[in-house]
Amino acid sequence: MSNTKDIDALIEMMAKLPGLGPRSARRAVLHMIKKRALLMSPLSEALQTVATTARECVNCGNIGTSDICDICQNPKRATGEICVVEDVADLWAMERSQVFKGRYHVLGGTLSALDAVGPEELRIPKLLDRVEADGISEVILALNATIDGQTTAHYIAGELEKRSVTVTSLAQGVPIGGELDYLDDGTISAALKARKAI
Amino acid sequence: MSNTKDIDALIEMMAKLPGLGPRSARRAVLHMIKKRALLMSPLSEALQTVATTARECVNCGNIGTSDICDICQNPKRATGEICVVEDVADLWAMERSQVFKGRYHVLGGTLSALDAVGPEELRIPKLLDRVEADGISEVILALNATIDGQTTAHYIAGELEKRSVTVTSLAQGVPIGGELDYLDDGTISAALKARKAI
Repeated sequence: MSNTKDIDALIEMMAKLPGLGPRSARRAVLHMIKKRALLMSPLSEALQTVATTARECVNCGNIGTSDICDICQNPKRATGEICVVEDVADLWAMERSQVFKGRYHVLGGTLSALDAVGPEELRIPKLLDRVEADGISEVILALNATIDGQTTAHYIAGELEKRSVTVTSLAQGVPIGGELDYLDDGTISAALKARKAI
Repeated sequence: MSNTKDIDALIEMMAKLPGLGPRSARRAVLHMIKKRALLMSPLSEALQTVATTARECVNCGNIGTSDICDICQNPKRATGEICVVEDVADLWAMERSQVFKGRYHVLGGTLSALDAVGPEELRIPKLLDRVEADGISEVILALNATIDGQTTAHYIAGELEKRSVTVTSLAQGVPIGGELDYLDDGTISAALKARKAI
């Protein structure tokens, strides 16, 4: 590849990141080398900072810089609503929409018989504890509309049935800006079934 | 986005790299945070190492860790051939093919009237110096087959005409594994004009 061990090692590390391959890693590294004073040292320091400070919230599983994350610490968000998501990336996506004002619970994946992922592996017991302890009135299941996601949602809904808590899930239908011609049959069928009066 | 300044800052920096956007930067950062001991600190150190050691070869413009790069220092590569490329990425691509055994000269771009890039901005004078001083017998113009690349090749060929040096360029034609149906007209036309006896 190039002629120096250090640069090759850096490219190799970058190439292993999701979304990057050898070609884009080479491109990114070359770009950084050309602007090394401006880009490389700050990026190196930012990585070091996050590597030392990032941790999982013991309460909800979100990633932050303290044992209890900013959302769980925020008294304004104690609305009695918990939004259950599969992954931190989903939590971030929900936060970008700026609509949900309650707290979250990150499962860390979905139930999967094939991969031997049971409720214990998924922070589901912790969710049930929180529902009991924090006086939660509504659990919103914002799991992905995949088979595994929906199986997990179904399981959690079953577990919460015995408790006095409303369980809801995200509406399914046509995405904003979506064109019918480009939507799959399942989405159109779900949107039709859940049609509402204007 | 997320809830911590540090993580947001890191995502923002990553998102500015070529080939990455906000979404892939978030994905990469989240992946790194999950495996932070394994990925983040080593990447941070690799970046710091390259940031402090990387420099341009004063002779050919290649990027390495010393003032004269490994290729220019290698006595086995003193073949009297110089391969002229636009960018270090092109030099790396040539090296991956493992066919060329001479030395390189990185122009750092192409001539462009629009962007006011003249020969002085492109290390072309240095190339002419090297041809004189090092007793070069052949200059191979491996510039991109774009209009700017070919204009630059033409200019360099003109400058070298007065000197006793062979000037060649890469062959144009059908790429290996290429299907005619997917090739543009220009490539097919070039390949036909340069056809050869089997």
